[in-house]
Amino acid sequence: MLNFTCDYTEGAHPLILQRLAETNLMQEAGYGEDAFSASARERIRAAVGVRDADVFFLVGGTQTNATVIDALLHGYEGVIAAQTGHIAVHEAGAVESAGHKVLTLPSHQGKLDAGELERYLEDFYADAAWPHMVCPGMVYLSFPTEYGTLYSKHELMCIQAVCRRYRLPLFVDGARLGYGLASDGCDISLPELAQCCDVFYIGGTKVGALCGEAVVFPKGAPAHFFTTVKQHGALLAKGRLTGIQFDVLFTDGLYFSISRNAVQRALELKALFLEKGIPLYIDSPTNQQFPILTKAQIDALEGKVRFEIWERLPDGRCVTRFATSWATFSESIAALAELLGEFEQS
Amino acid sequence: MLNFTCDYTEGAHPLILQRLAETNLMQEAGYGEDAFSASARERIRAAVGVRDADVFFLVGGTQTNATVIDALLHGYEGVIAAQTGHIAVHEAGAVESAGHKVLTLPSHQGKLDAGELERYLEDFYADAAWPHMVCPGMVYLSFPTEYGTLYSKHELMCIQAVCRRYRLPLFVDGARLGYGLASDGCDISLPELAQCCDVFYIGGTKVGALCGEAVVFPKGAPAHFFTTVKQHGALLAKGRLTGIQFDVLFTDGLYFSISRNAVQRALELKALFLEKGIPLYIDSPTNQQFPILTKAQIDALEGKVRFEIWERLPDGRCVTRFATSWATFSESIAALAELLGEFEQS
Amino acid sequence: MLNFTCDYTEGAHPLILQRLAETNLMQEAGYGEDAFSASARERIRAAVGVRDADVFFLVGGTQTNATVIDALLHGYEGVIAAQTGHIAVHEAGAVESAGHKVLTLPSHQGKLDAGELERYLEDFYADAAWPHMVCPGMVYLSFPTEYGTLYSKHELMCIQAVCRRYRLPLFVDGARLGYGLASDGCDISLPELAQCCDVFYIGGTKVGALCGEAVVFPKGAPAHFFTTVKQHGALLAKGRLTGIQFDVLFTDGLYFSISRNAVQRALELKALFLEKGIPLYIDSPTNQQFPILTKAQIDALEGKVRFEIWERLPDGRCVTRFATSWATFSESIAALAELLGEFEQS
Amino acid sequence: MLNFTCDYTEGAHPLILQRLAETNLMQEAGYGEDAFSASARERIRAAVGVRDADVFFLVGGTQTNATVIDALLHGYEGVIAAQTGHIAVHEAGAVESAGHKVLTLPSHQGKLDAGELERYLEDFYADAAWPHMVCPGMVYLSFPTEYGTLYSKHELMCIQAVCRRYRLPLFVDGARLGYGLASDGCDISLPELAQCCDVFYIGGTKVGALCGEAVVFPKGAPAHFFTTVKQHGALLAKGRLTGIQFDVLFTDGLYFSISRNAVQRALELKALFLEKGIPLYIDSPTNQQFPILTKAQIDALEGKVRFEIWERLPDGRCVTRFATSWATFSESIAALAELLGEFEQS
Repeated sequence: MLNFTCDYTEGAHPLILQRLAETNLMQEAGYGEDAFSASARERIRAAVGVRDADVFFLVGGTQTNATVIDALLHGYEGVIAAQTGHIAVHEAGAVESAGHKVLTLPSHQGKLDAGELERYLEDFYADAAWPHMVCPGMVYLSFPTEYGTLYSKHELMCIQAVCRRYRLPLFVDGARLGYGLASDGCDISLPELAQCCDVFYIGGTKVGALCGEAVVFPKGAPAHFFTTVKQHGALLAKGRLTGIQFDVLFTDGLYFSISRNAVQRALELKALFLEKGIPLYIDSPTNQQFPILTKAQIDALEGKVRFEIWERLPDGRCVTRFATSWATFSESIAALAELLGEFEQS
Repeated sequence: MLNFTCDYTEGAHPLILQRLAETNLMQEAGYGEDAFSASARERIRAAVGVRDADVFFLVGGTQTNATVIDALLHGYEGVIAAQTGHIAVHEAGAVESAGHKVLTLPSHQGKLDAGELERYLEDFYADAAWPHMVCPGMVYLSFPTEYGTLYSKHELMCIQAVCRRYRLPLFVDGARLGYGLASDGCDISLPELAQCCDVFYIGGTKVGALCGEAVVFPKGAPAHFFTTVKQHGALLAKGRLTGIQFDVLFTDGLYFSISRNAVQRALELKALFLEKGIPLYIDSPTNQQFPILTKAQIDALEGKVRFEIWERLPDGRCVTRFATSWATFSESIAALAELLGEFEQS
Repeated sequence: MLNFTCDYTEGAHPLILQRLAETNLMQEAGYGEDAFSASARERIRAAVGVRDADVFFLVGGTQTNATVIDALLHGYEGVIAAQTGHIAVHEAGAVESAGHKVLTLPSHQGKLDAGELERYLEDFYADAAWPHMVCPGMVYLSFPTEYGTLYSKHELMCIQAVCRRYRLPLFVDGARLGYGLASDGCDISLPELAQCCDVFYIGGTKVGALCGEAVVFPKGAPAHFFTTVKQHGALLAKGRLTGIQFDVLFTDGLYFSISRNAVQRALELKALFLEKGIPLYIDSPTNQQFPILTKAQIDALEGKVRFEIWERLPDGRCVTRFATSWATFSESIAALAELLGEFEQS
Repeated sequence: MLNFTCDYTEGAHPLILQRLAETNLMQEAGYGEDAFSASARERIRAAVGVRDADVFFLVGGTQTNATVIDALLHGYEGVIAAQTGHIAVHEAGAVESAGHKVLTLPSHQGKLDAGELERYLEDFYADAAWPHMVCPGMVYLSFPTEYGTLYSKHELMCIQAVCRRYRLPLFVDGARLGYGLASDGCDISLPELAQCCDVFYIGGTKVGALCGEAVVFPKGAPAHFFTTVKQHGALLAKGRLTGIQFDVLFTDGLYFSISRNAVQRALELKALFLEKGIPLYIDSPTNQQFPILTKAQIDALEGKVRFEIWERLPDGRCVTRFATSWATFSESIAALAELLGEFEQS
């Protein structure tokens, strides 16, 4: 059966498994003090263009968001996010469980708007009662967003400018960062992104690794971040597991070629849907596509191809999600095309 | 260089890597809903002898402790542990960061004493001010302990009896469970252990896996434990990573043969130290040995063998830790014997 | 200067001060174990019509909300509130600081809508991803609301019905409960309200006391609620302070006569504004009125009468708040009438 | 019946009640913005000899400890206290519920020892595993201690010196501060104490007020402390309640004369016990005395005088606590003398 449910249906890119096997008997220190992690940190510093960036390897996205946010906020502060932001919806309250409120602003196809952000901050401090409210303490955004959309460089610069004016750290959730950077719709480079924010992470789990997210602090990490990571249960004893994976991902541009493959396949999907007259919910330039299918179409695909139901529309149709990854091959797209072909005739 | 620092200096047992490679392209659902995790859960249920036990796979030990404890305690409750318990010392305050106090009792070579536990509980409720104090809400112990020692079946039954009397869940931290069960000093079987407690975990990270701890609730998990796991950032998108590993570990008794090898090597180490007149800090029957070395001995080994300095004694000598694992071969013990031989002559 | 800023600009009702003085030298136990608190609890049980209700005295509103919510929720649960709910906006993140998310629904003049609540719950559990999200664990509403409005008995019964269907406790924040019950717009009695919810509190601070909120659990309090109160720093050593106050407030119907006076004065205010052609933002039947004033009007009142600026409208006018209390006398309304009179002519 | 149970068995000093009555109808702003609180802050600044100290009024001791500690610590830090410290034992886990560990050191009649503190800190950072542990983030001590004992000026200076060396804020819990300062055994003045620490509080509840603790930051409060206070539910809407009380307590030295009365009565108690051959558990120079009574003696006093059972000794005798306050008159001591007299003859 074809499977486009998500970008984590397979294991890891084969080069990662190969390297895990090659290095398996080398004895190394734990907790990220191993030579592989050191090498991976160096490669990432080179890729982001900041020679003295602090880099940490955590295990998963929710964990990374909770840990970074907890490390950056004071107790009386909250984190600003779009209403559709992953931390606001799909992280089981991890941010709140560490004591912080998620302060939500409207979502524009998954994105925050710099103007709205600025007005929110102006209004907040214009309200005499602000000391009775949660202080905005940082800004969180996802790149790409949960809807597969991208901020333009200009949009990011505008948000960064507001953040600077209000001295708010800017945190970019890059669970699918590669797919953003590899998109034709992206006009910002990784080093430019690194300049633009205070902390971001380079997602591994959804971009070819078994697990792992690389947190980058271009201007340096908060004090004792290692201990904060440990406290959040995010420190691997065998730190080599994430170290080796990121070392491979950032060797010979693998992270980027994986991402390009996925985006290329996604664009083929998109073309296919449009060709078949299937509307798209959002014009996504990255590895997630959101075709709107009728109940009949969904039924026809049942048992032949897997995908996610994203949202039910009032008219009975469904927004669905088709995702691609390093492991999506042209053959799969061709097979889907065939299915949609039959389907057209029926 | 020889390396006895800990039981996580290498990658994973080769059969695990082999299985990760074989299954790599099979498409599976995320978040533990994959077929590998389902199979691993079944094998673990069989091994612990409880057909309807709830089994969850988390990533690391500190995370597992914090998640399980948070799930079992009410807000007004704390967890009882030995003063030397991992949660009391080496988890960066993860339990407290979820709002709970660790209530410590004296440690007897790493172990709680059932009598002391009972007196503590009696005294607690005899004190009229108890509602102003943190209520004891569960008991935590490590098997083996942080000092490599083991509770006898009788000791565990006594602790269990006190727990039952006070309706306190008993949680066994089995980060190194295999090494305990494989020891000649162990008189309890895995199914007996499962009968004895309310929740325990089978450590993978330190017993041959890349990462992963299998949490077992013999009498059923607390409601919505999945969501609690997610909230603690302990849910892998690629749940297959831990599922596959535990599936391999619990096929053909691999978990137990790995453990036996480590314990066998550790006993060789122990014999070697005693033969060389090196005293042991604690009489450990498991994979961690604690020889007391003089400064001269430590200097002589420098650059030739790695181990951990555990504690400095007032007389200048050091308690050290030598650990073995699946990846400790007889050759390493022989090489160490040779070093200690030279060392004797010097 | 006239002062309508809020309902806590004066000290306490004189009968309270008198009773504090009379009882001052009587020696009593601390922490709510005193005879005054016992008497107050009995009087409140009689007033709410539940002979075995559990009653606790806490100090302030934010504290009470945080304590009750923390006591009722599991770690993986959040509390549903209107977007304008006090806990969602003006409590500095107290609920989140105890680890829980506030799940917001639209506000209809401060009120939740039972239909929207039900659809939210249906949609929540219809979403396959719900275990990745914060579970709704209770419903919070304010009576009267932050906008001075009231739920009808029918509206409350509908919300209660939804809560029962989903087994969610219903919590009524009664910081200004008296003003609600004393309003002509109110069609529910205190005993009916007590039947309708799982926990509510009778506000003292804003209804004539120096401080104090009486939390009532008609069906019994959660286990160890006393300890939870202590943990939240909400337990007075001199529990007599709140005990005496509520004992007085619930003697000879003082709580209700205080409330009726305030509502009567507020209706006079309302009539006055309408008579002067000043529009009201909301048709409030309780002790808070929200006239919309122009900048010129606000300037004219400056230095003569105090009130709160609630919200600036796009057209430059301001929603203001005028509140009354036990200490608002007809003379003050007359004086304001005179000021508004001049003001009309200018 | 005589009552020496604690120092909060009565209401407030009569001058406080009188002032509450006099000011009752004056209209003032809420949340500590009233003129009474402003005046009280000025008087306290004068009394502590720091013109620009930040002063906040909170309601109770546990709340104050939790709020101050939460405001000063980073998430990865804990607070050092004596094992017998109030925060370590009798605050229902309030510090932990805000996410922080209480790191305990031995208690010497309730006191921390500067040398032990220093060794603890040295050992902590000497342990290579310290980043896996909770970092010491501040030091907490009680003055007087929970056993009524006092630190000498020299002892405090030594502790302060260690704190400075390790850049740890020093927090003095002064729930009974007056009784310490009024003792003949005290060689430090209030201004000297203020110089010695980073934050302390002047207890009101146990020294003549209905409620209230004045937190003083001689070197300035942490940013947004007001919001932290609100978040902890410690902000009174009628801030005048604590403002007026501290204004009275710091007018004409009332706080000190109240304290002197209590200490004088306590010394009379002490003399009485010794005269009757009743041993004291601890040589306390403040308002709490700890006579050791036999079961027969306790039975004989039953129904005639109230006091607290502090601890049962192995030989069957009990350490008891007799406390005095502003409301303990010489007549009560005389009456107790008579009872003990009878008691001697029986």
